[in-house]
Amino acid sequence: MSSPPVSRREFDALFGRVRSWGRWADAGRGAWNRVTPGHVLRAAALVRTGNVVPLGRPWDTASGPDNARPALHYMSDLGDVEPPEPSTHKDFIGADYHGKAVSHLDAPAHVAYRGRLFDGGPARELVGAGGARFGDVAGLGPLVTRGVLLDLPAVRGTAWLEPGEAVHPADLTGAEAALGVTVGEGDALLLRTGRFRRRRERGAWDPGAASAGLHVRSVPLLAERGIALLGGDGDSDVRPSPVEGVHSPVHTLAVAAMGVPLLDNLDLEALSAACAEAGRYAFLLAVAPLNVPGGTGSPVNPIAVL
Amino acid sequence: MSSPPVSRREFDALFGRVRSWGRWADAGRGAWNRVTPGHVLRAAALVRTGNVVPLGRPWDTASGPDNARPALHYMSDLGDVEPPEPSTHKDFIGADYHGKAVSHLDAPAHVAYRGRLFDGGPARELVGAGGARFGDVAGLGPLVTRGVLLDLPAVRGTAWLEPGEAVHPADLTGAEAALGVTVGEGDALLLRTGRFRRRRERGAWDPGAASAGLHVRSVPLLAERGIALLGGDGDSDVRPSPVEGVHSPVHTLAVAAMGVPLLDNLDLEALSAACAEAGRYAFLLAVAPLNVPGGTGSPVNPIAVL
Amino acid sequence: MSSPPVSRREFDALFGRVRSWGRWADAGRGAWNRVTPGHVLRAAALVRTGNVVPLGRPWDTASGPDNARPALHYMSDLGDVEPPEPSTHKDFIGADYHGKAVSHLDAPAHVAYRGRLFDGGPARELVGAGGARFGDVAGLGPLVTRGVLLDLPAVRGTAWLEPGEAVHPADLTGAEAALGVTVGEGDALLLRTGRFRRRRERGAWDPGAASAGLHVRSVPLLAERGIALLGGDGDSDVRPSPVEGVHSPVHTLAVAAMGVPLLDNLDLEALSAACAEAGRYAFLLAVAPLNVPGGTGSPVNPIAVL
Amino acid sequence: MSSPPVSRREFDALFGRVRSWGRWADAGRGAWNRVTPGHVLRAAALVRTGNVVPLGRPWDTASGPDNARPALHYMSDLGDVEPPEPSTHKDFIGADYHGKAVSHLDAPAHVAYRGRLFDGGPARELVGAGGARFGDVAGLGPLVTRGVLLDLPAVRGTAWLEPGEAVHPADLTGAEAALGVTVGEGDALLLRTGRFRRRRERGAWDPGAASAGLHVRSVPLLAERGIALLGGDGDSDVRPSPVEGVHSPVHTLAVAAMGVPLLDNLDLEALSAACAEAGRYAFLLAVAPLNVPGGTGSPVNPIAVL
Repeated sequence: MSSPPVSRREFDALFGRVRSWGRWADAGRGAWNRVTPGHVLRAAALVRTGNVVPLGRPWDTASGPDNARPALHYMSDLGDVEPPEPSTHKDFIGADYHGKAVSHLDAPAHVAYRGRLFDGGPARELVGAGGARFGDVAGLGPLVTRGVLLDLPAVRGTAWLEPGEAVHPADLTGAEAALGVTVGEGDALLLRTGRFRRRRERGAWDPGAASAGLHVRSVPLLAERGIALLGGDGDSDVRPSPVEGVHSPVHTLAVAAMGVPLLDNLDLEALSAACAEAGRYAFLLAVAPLNVPGGTGSPVNPIAVL
Repeated sequence: MSSPPVSRREFDALFGRVRSWGRWADAGRGAWNRVTPGHVLRAAALVRTGNVVPLGRPWDTASGPDNARPALHYMSDLGDVEPPEPSTHKDFIGADYHGKAVSHLDAPAHVAYRGRLFDGGPARELVGAGGARFGDVAGLGPLVTRGVLLDLPAVRGTAWLEPGEAVHPADLTGAEAALGVTVGEGDALLLRTGRFRRRRERGAWDPGAASAGLHVRSVPLLAERGIALLGGDGDSDVRPSPVEGVHSPVHTLAVAAMGVPLLDNLDLEALSAACAEAGRYAFLLAVAPLNVPGGTGSPVNPIAVL
Repeated sequence: MSSPPVSRREFDALFGRVRSWGRWADAGRGAWNRVTPGHVLRAAALVRTGNVVPLGRPWDTASGPDNARPALHYMSDLGDVEPPEPSTHKDFIGADYHGKAVSHLDAPAHVAYRGRLFDGGPARELVGAGGARFGDVAGLGPLVTRGVLLDLPAVRGTAWLEPGEAVHPADLTGAEAALGVTVGEGDALLLRTGRFRRRRERGAWDPGAASAGLHVRSVPLLAERGIALLGGDGDSDVRPSPVEGVHSPVHTLAVAAMGVPLLDNLDLEALSAACAEAGRYAFLLAVAPLNVPGGTGSPVNPIAVL
Repeated sequence: MSSPPVSRREFDALFGRVRSWGRWADAGRGAWNRVTPGHVLRAAALVRTGNVVPLGRPWDTASGPDNARPALHYMSDLGDVEPPEPSTHKDFIGADYHGKAVSHLDAPAHVAYRGRLFDGGPARELVGAGGARFGDVAGLGPLVTRGVLLDLPAVRGTAWLEPGEAVHPADLTGAEAALGVTVGEGDALLLRTGRFRRRRERGAWDPGAASAGLHVRSVPLLAERGIALLGGDGDSDVRPSPVEGVHSPVHTLAVAAMGVPLLDNLDLEALSAACAEAGRYAFLLAVAPLNVPGGTGSPVNPIAVL
């Protein structure tokens, strides 16, 4: 499962190979430009049972090894602030949502490499205290496209991938063959490693120290396929990083080189069961991030519709 | 436009008439129990052009007459907190989202009348500082169903309804006839009053003082139709309230009596244009609230897919 | 150091013994009613070297075993939001400050026993989502009085008290004798256990599981002395609690029975050194909580002036 | 009251005239370096009646013309989250406190002019998303010194200064003479304009548009006197600004040129009455900002002790 480390030189070559800068007029939307109305129609045609499966984890207000910045949830009215009738119950939510606990979308503005955002603009000038002026989540808008689940533990017949296990190109193509699905242009690829099943059975651990995820050498395959979105139950990157001096190489290639937004920390357990039961691993995926101007992403509750 | 005021006695009779307590085993999901996989399939079949229209307003951090509790958005990393490479940009968002500015969903737990939540449970025991133990948004989950837009200004040939204008049953049935659509069982009804067009042209005002919206006597019609969700560019209630002693009578009947969640403060301008262009006012609507255990609702960015 | 457990019956007897309900007209200020202008003058007369020692810990935004709800600190302007000149840097701070990490004051409203706040009012009616209507921190206002440091490790010649060590009445009177100071009416008593020296040398631990602090049987002595304020580098309670069924018995007696506000999580290391150098353990103490109407306390940075 | 506008050239000359860069080894503490233990002793000696007067406004959670970013206050426990006994009430507070509503301290890091912080360091390198690395509030610590109230409405025999009124050097020296006090080295100068009396009687207005405050030509007098701290019931600057192209010229000179922290939005009404009653306008002032590493200031509740 382990593989020789990746040099910074090789990494930079990979970056150059998958880079899709200068391709789209509305560059801030990155690879979501790949998704045309035709892709939406194709996704709608996949709806056959009407089973709607949410992929968002519970809003997690408890700190822990995988939740260094717990989300906030406070009741602002319990029917005793605003006068009845009716009485109303209200709440405040808040989150520094990037991290390992909140199901969220990374917009193109989230990641820069060597000071450059996707499409080459200088991060320091384009992102400030007021937010991002390029690649923000409000500019992305929502996405409806075909989702494909590569359920790696299901393919391997294991409960989960162990933290630290890297997913290589052969794992991806093997999963495609085993699951009868082929990732293609405009797809949203979801990778299940079984993280949250393991968490439920073994307890929480620090995913920054060890996570199953994609090896950086798997990214060119995804680039060739022309995916629009990459997500999973981790944050896509295998950890520790196999690339010296680059803590999140898959983030770097996907977001900064390819303009592919990421979905991190999805709970894919119910989707795994639903796909197994339905005997198919492609479905309509809808992602509707909050409309935050300048935002580098958003907490989300993506839905798969089978 | 005005109509005789509604007595508390009449209101309570209306409440009794539309009340659907005791109907569903999973009562906390309220009228979303009406939406079956068949409704999802029917909604998917409405997708014909692949046009995806988001309905969420921009996250509004500026206080004003319609934004008493401005949302929060702060950058928590500008590439200078976590070490590169890559550099990452992160942000915190927060909102006390009920109110007039954030596009949000009201879960059944949001409203109680005479101390009772939907299905009759005592609000004081079911909702506390830790959140709601009945009718919370995590229990609701997402919704995919047929959405119907009743575009009242389009029907009337006006730019918007004036603040304070009430929408009566005849307005609803008239709009159905004019737009060629009939609201039915399991539908999500969206009501456009043109609020945000007016706001853009005339500036913000206090919608708590004056809003176009449904007259409370329109609710029985909606109950007969068996809607699952009610939403609009206001908060569904005409204001000032026509019911003495009840500040939000439509909220009360919809949420507490019928278990119908509400979508408040949607920006329906783009959807209005899209429906007019497509020549139809029914579409797939997907609502994916954040998965907040105990939450009384959620900021959302619903999507219509035509 | 260990002692037989305290039964609930004994605890309730202690509660009755130290209870000072019905004593003050402005009961919401609790024992701060003991501090007269004369006490302020007496405190000012203690200022001899002009050494000002702050007691507040750094605002701690990192979660950990003693920081389950990390404080928030975000920059809201880096000179790029509001236009220059001048450019301005701004920040947002936030905290759910009760707990083990933030130096804070507990107002009388913080604690109720058997449903009763200090002075006997019903907690459920007096504290709601809008805050406390009795015993809130805005009603308390600031305090200037004589502070007395009982530096227990200094007396014992140890670096710190081990987590779990209880401080008994003889420890208090022994410390008074050793340090040449006697706690009296209207004083602010500060108890040093060496917690933050231990934390710096040994790393953080969970103080909810084990903390050095006062044994509940020490509280009557403090009641006899008529203290106005009790504080320390822990939260005053030894943990685990020696009282079955009462997780914070010192909190209960001090706040709910005696109306004595508490100062939790002070960093007393510099004050320990300053008192040792000055050869005296009494000084002016000033506590200026934020003026939060309805607040159950406040983050604070108390100052000792020697 | 009005005076000819100040050119940018004159302003820059004023900046050079009052600049005290390169003077202190611990430059990040700015003019608080002026306050020695001797100043603390002198302040303590001013305590004669033991009257403690808090200067912090109530934590203001209501948006309005002078509160664009309302403070947050939510109850996080109403005795129903953590198990009894005792039951505990807890709350979250938060604030983007710079602005016109929260009583707060501006640390030296708050203001930069022509890209330079106090003492000349480059703002862009010294302040980032993680906070300020120079001139932060944690580095400042608390201040105890002589406070002097220049109560301008009391001197003029008016209820308040009208918004927009500028305070000139002759107003300051006239007030000194009338009130029998002389501002000197290491003092904290508090300027009362009667803002909050006017607000209570006339209602809130936008102080960004019109505020009584210091004319920029008054600052050299304050520099000559060697003040350590400047504060008031406004934000010290008269508004609109008399300096073209500089929105907050007094902030700029005080903070960036002189290293003098500011206290904004104090409620000085009670202090005004206390000084009038005592017949003296000098007292001990204690300011204890929260210990926020990297913070550009802090909400505070300063206290005057007479």
